[in-house]
This record gives sequence, C-alpha cells and structure tokens, in this order.
Amino acid sequence: MKAEIIAVGTELLLGQIVNTNAQFLSQKLAELGVDVYFQTVVGDNAQRLRQAIEIGRSRSDLLVFTGGLGPTQDDLTKDVLADFLNCELIIHEPSMSKIEQLFHSRGIHMVESNRRQALIIEGGEPLENTTGLAVGNGLFAGGTLYLLLPGPPKEMKPMMEGAGGEWLRSKLGERQPLYSRILKFAGIGESNLEAKLLDLIDGQVDPTIAPYAKEGEVAIRVSTKANSASEADHKIDAAVEKIKERVGEFLYAQNDIPLEAEVVHLLRASRRKLASAESCSGGLLAELITNVPGSSGEYLGGVVTYTNMMKHRLLSVPMTQLEGEGSPGAVSDSTAALMAERVRELADADFGVSLTGVAGPAESEGKPVGLVYFAIAERGKAADVHTLHLSGDRSIIRLRAVKATLYRLWQRLKD
Amino acid sequence: MKAEIIAVGTELLLGQIVNTNAQFLSQKLAELGVDVYFQTVVGDNAQRLRQAIEIGRSRSDLLVFTGGLGPTQDDLTKDVLADFLNCELIIHEPSMSKIEQLFHSRGIHMVESNRRQALIIEGGEPLENTTGLAVGNGLFAGGTLYLLLPGPPKEMKPMMEGAGGEWLRSKLGERQPLYSRILKFAGIGESNLEAKLLDLIDGQVDPTIAPYAKEGEVAIRVSTKANSASEADHKIDAAVEKIKERVGEFLYAQNDIPLEAEVVHLLRASRRKLASAESCSGGLLAELITNVPGSSGEYLGGVVTYTNMMKHRLLSVPMTQLEGEGSPGAVSDSTAALMAERVRELADADFGVSLTGVAGPAESEGKPVGLVYFAIAERGKAADVHTLHLSGDRSIIRLRAVKATLYRLWQRLKD
Repeated sequence: MKAEIIAVGTELLLGQIVNTNAQFLSQKLAELGVDVYFQTVVGDNAQRLRQAIEIGRSRSDLLVFTGGLGPTQDDLTKDVLADFLNCELIIHEPSMSKIEQLFHSRGIHMVESNRRQALIIEGGEPLENTTGLAVGNGLFAGGTLYLLLPGPPKEMKPMMEGAGGEWLRSKLGERQPLYSRILKFAGIGESNLEAKLLDLIDGQVDPTIAPYAKEGEVAIRVSTKANSASEADHKIDAAVEKIKERVGEFLYAQNDIPLEAEVVHLLRASRRKLASAESCSGGLLAELITNVPGSSGEYLGGVVTYTNMMKHRLLSVPMTQLEGEGSPGAVSDSTAALMAERVRELADADFGVSLTGVAGPAESEGKPVGLVYFAIAERGKAADVHTLHLSGDRSIIRLRAVKATLYRLWQRLKD
Repeated sequence: MKAEIIAVGTELLLGQIVNTNAQFLSQKLAELGVDVYFQTVVGDNAQRLRQAIEIGRSRSDLLVFTGGLGPTQDDLTKDVLADFLNCELIIHEPSMSKIEQLFHSRGIHMVESNRRQALIIEGGEPLENTTGLAVGNGLFAGGTLYLLLPGPPKEMKPMMEGAGGEWLRSKLGERQPLYSRILKFAGIGESNLEAKLLDLIDGQVDPTIAPYAKEGEVAIRVSTKANSASEADHKIDAAVEKIKERVGEFLYAQNDIPLEAEVVHLLRASRRKLASAESCSGGLLAELITNVPGSSGEYLGGVVTYTNMMKHRLLSVPMTQLEGEGSPGAVSDSTAALMAERVRELADADFGVSLTGVAGPAESEGKPVGLVYFAIAERGKAADVHTLHLSGDRSIIRLRAVKATLYRLWQRLKD
C-alpha cells in the first residue's frame, strides 16, 4: 500500500509552523506496514488543493490529510474533496450536538460557522475527535482511501491513535500486521546509544531495530511482522535481550511513556511520596510529574523558589548560605542539598528533589550558563548532589536538567 | 513567482526526522517576495524524484531542492535532474580540490564516492558550501529556476543565507519583499475572533489579514509588499487600527510573543512582583512564566500545593476549609481566594495568583472534570475569583486554565 500525506495550511507554506504532523503520521503509517512515498503541503486554496488530490490519487492508494477541518472560511479540505468526488457533505448529528452543548455550557454565543466542523462526506465514516470539535472522516471511494484528520497536533494525534487508526486498520484488511515495541532510554544521548547499537541497527533484519525520533527523549523501535501478538512478542523479546546486554542500565520502559510516568509508577509501587524544590527549572519538574494522570497519590507538592528571599522564606535556607562574600551562593551543591532536604521535611515526603542552576541567557553569581546542581534527599539519609554542565538554550537546559534529575530518581527507585 | 520546495530523503518519509528545512526556506522565500505554493517530500528513489520534478516544473517557476547532494548511492538529486534536463554533470574543480585537501589534511583515505560531491550540472552556477563538502547548484533551464541545496540544516542554512540566496536574488531582479506583523490575542477563541473580522479577512487586499494558527494561542497575520520597512509599517498600522476598533481589548501584542512574556513585561514596567500558588495546574503557570528570559526580576516564586496537607502546611489554609462535611473543599472559590492571598503574603509580592480545580481524568470532591477556580490577589485589595468550565483532556484543561489566569492578570496590569 502506497500512501501520501497531504498537509493543508498556508501557515506551513509561509514557514510559520513546522510540519511535525507529517513526521508523526509517517511513523504511525510505518508501524501499520504502510509505505509513505510522498508528503505534500498545499495552502488553503481550493484549486491547488484539488490539484494535489488529483496527483495524490494518481500515485497513491491512501491519502492522509491534516488540516482544513476547522470552522473558518479557510478550512476547505472537506468541501474540496467532496466536490472532487461528487459527494455531498452531510451533518454528523452527534458531533453537532457536542458543538452546540459545548457553547451552551460555556454560555458563549456560537458563531454559525462552528457547525461546519460537524460535516462529513456522505458515505464516509465519522471519526471522533476526543480533544476538539472538528469531526474526522474516513472514506473509500474510487479505489482510493481518504483519511481526514484535524490540523492541530493535539487533536490529530489522539484521533490517529484512536478512531482514525482503527478505521485504517479495518481497511487494510488481512495483512500480516507490523508489531512494534518502543524502548525508552534515559541517561544516555541519542548518538551515543546509536553508536553502541550500530551493528544491530544496520544488520538486524527481523525484528528490525531503528532509532525512533522524539523531541527531548531517546527511543528505539523494534518491529516485526507476525501472525499474532504472542508470536511478535516472542521475536521482539529476543531482540530486546540483545539490546539490554549493551545498554540495559539506561532502559526505563518498554512502551512509549515519559520518564516521569515511570517515576510515578515506581513511587506508587513502593508506596513512597515525593516533594520538589525548584529554582532554575521554575516548576517544570512539578509540571511534568503532575501531568501524569493520578500523580496526586505520589506527588505531594513543592515550591518554586525563584529568588533567594523565597529560598529563605519557604525553605529556611540561611541568607548567609545564599549571599555575601565567600558564601556558596544559590547555585551550589550545598544549596541544592539544603533545598532537597528542607522540602522533604516540609512536605513530610519520602523523597525531596531540588534543582538550582543557571538556565541562561546570562550567567549568574559569576557561574556559567548550563551549570546546574540537583539533589535527591531520602528520609533518613543525607542528600545526594549531582552536577550538570549542559548546553543549549534556556528551555533545553531546563528540560535536560529536569530529565537528568528524574533519571537519577528512577535509578534510586528501581534498585 | 511561484515556488515549490522539494525535500529529498527517505528518512523524512519514515518520520525519522522532521522537515525543518521546509519551514526555514519558506520563511526565507517569503522575505524575498517569492510565494511558496507547494512543499513536497520524496524519497531517495530516481523514478519518484523524476515524477516530482515533472510535477513541480509544470506548476512552479522555481524549484528549491534540499538533500541528495551527498556522496552515497542514495544521493540522487543532481543525477536525476541532469538526466531530466538532458544535461551532463561536470566537475567543479575548486570543490574537488577542497574535498581532496580535507581528506589529505586529516590523513584519512578518501572513498572514491566523495568526489560526487564536487559535481554540478553543466550550465549551472556552483554555490559554495561553507560548512560542508557538497557544492550547491543554481540553474535556469527551460524557463524554470532550479536551486539545489544540501540536506543537513547546518549546511543548507548558511548556503541559503550566502551563495544560494545571492544567486536567487540575482535571478529575481527588482521585486518588492513581503512584510508581515503578527497580532496576538487572548481571552477570545479563534472562531469568535474570525467572525468579528470576517469582512476584513475576506475583503482586505493590501495589507492582507489572515488567521494564523498556533497551538493554544490565537493570532492574526497582517502582510503587505512594500519597498521599505517604514512604508510597510505605515500600511500595516492602518490595518491594525481597523482591527483594534473591533477586538482591541483582546490584543495583547503586535509581535509573536506568548501571553506570559507580555505579563512579565507589564510587571517589569510597573515594578510589581508576582507569586503563584497552584493546585490542579501543577506548576505549569510557574513554568511558563519562568521560561520567559529575565523573569526572575518579576516572578518571586510559588508553591505547588498538590494535596490538602500541602495547602495547609505551606499556605496555612485551615483543614476545616478543605475537608469534612459542609466544608467548601479544595476546589472552591474561597480556597482559590485564600491560596492567592496567602502566597502573596508569603512572598511579599504585589500579586498572588492561584489555581485550583479538577484537571481529570476523574472527578474530585464530587466536582466535575474541567471545573477550575482561579484568583488574583493584589496587595491591599480583596482577591478576585473567577470560575472556568473547561473541556479537553488533562493537559488541555491545565493549559487553558493557566492561559485564562494570565489573561485576567494581563487585563489588570494594562489598566
């Protein structure tokens, strides 16, 4: 099966956003055993979109669209495709009710154009949008499969992982499906991991072992075609053993979950509680942890002590520790240790973690951008302090520092 | 002039990398006044690449290629285009010397295929690669302009900003560049904003006014072609005035910055300090604010009181307020008010903001997912509490709640 991804949106052609949807969908289609031969971007223009559909249909069996399902005049995908196929647009009642109810419940006047988001092409299957209003659409017409997904990644991804992917699998029919397992690593860089696995990545044919790009994370995908999940598991398990022999210490999960979810999982399993004190990371660690559903059982809370005064007021770090000639300063191993210990006590938690450093853009206390100290304090033990020298811009330094902290915590918890 | 960007590389079709080159080139071409109508990605396959060239030539005046200039068997761009145009590939001697010298100086044996990187299409102009070995190529043939750039961004960008851009400008002659301004809005939904501006979006020809999609944000782009930046500013200012008459109260910036950056800016301008107390948002507000460079001058810090005990311990919210029969509970307007007031006092800040609610996936205290209270406490005034009924998944509810809080704070600060 040959597929083409068609992204619709003038903002892509103007370079205002980057087409991350194409990457996500290419990965998902590869997992389903579908070969993507082309990716196309076309603007919000009926004539050129129609042209792209014509070309796509002539060279591909499956066209996956993203974008152009919204309420505005610029959202043309359904109209143009329906016209091209000589089909009508019809109202999908459940989607229409959902839209009306949402506006009603918020007490906002609904602009008429919002109803457009409930339209589907006749003969097609509506695909539920669990995170937005525009209904998706799957259609088989004239020998070609058409899958219409919303443009915003936060709507497109859940639809592709839910109703959209399901529809597609049903249409692909009896094929030896591709089974994949994502291995997630922490504490090791992408190129370093690849170097250690290079001969497996290049030489291993079944299962295949390939790097799997995800922003800020390091992952490997192990894939095989098999007749059943258990047959696939068996083959994949053997390959994973080979990988573990080399880099097992960095492997934190055999499915696609973020490191913080695994940390929450281990805390829960060992019935322990966490608290955090953040300076340079400004709440990012708390934010990542609390974004894990159900984390309120394991994460008690924390402080973001962005100034010395707050470190003193909230955590009772002595001002002489933080300021003045000869003091260690806010960015120091001893301040990191104090912050972790004090927040642990304050919350009566089993673990207290802390971060203090220089995220940039300018140096601080005469200390360079990228220097970060983090500490892990456990009940009844002295705090463990670690030093990082990170590069990158402000956001990247913050993210890397938090992930390094989570990695050490994960190591402590799994042992 | 109609342009198309053709990225060549199977790794893009497999989703292993994201096509950031297309975004960069689209921006650069827009600055040169060139309209990009299509972006295409095709694999390292001679037949399909030739197909893409044929289609591109039929609909565009300029084809910009990235990728496929390297030394391997998979690097086909020059070969396929030369064949398509019935031209020969010739050696560019300075590039060849550079390649040979590099290997010689490193004392590495040069694999013969490296010489391929010095080939150009006859009749074309060689484009110097200042950060790599593969020479670029500019060519005018049969009424179409072809610009061949390397795939790796660290080679492609300098070439486009150097020899490639220069060659292109020489071919374009005297043209008016496009100037754009991004207007950012908060406190109003995308479709609602568009409805209020519909006649301007549809009818206004110069400058053009168009919606500009950004995740979690609402923006409008105003663009015009002009001979100078000041001429463009003059035209764009007039259009912005018309927009402000209708939706000025929601316009927070005339450049592409996030709402939190504008809040930090207004805090700085009025010399006021902020502290935060977060429950359901788990540190997201702190994280967004502290991601603004230099925010340590305005943001003192805050607490993430994820459990009732932490609300009690850190903020002295009475347990009788939070738990027990007839108590308002953690998710209530009075708890939000107390949290904002207490954290303001604790930090000795001018403003204290708080969020408490149910981000899901499950309800809490018998209160529904999406119910969020936020409060803004100002020194010397009673806290102001607001109620939100939000939909979406956990991350979306958190983000929307935080953005709504920032919007109200922005309103207070600008008045």
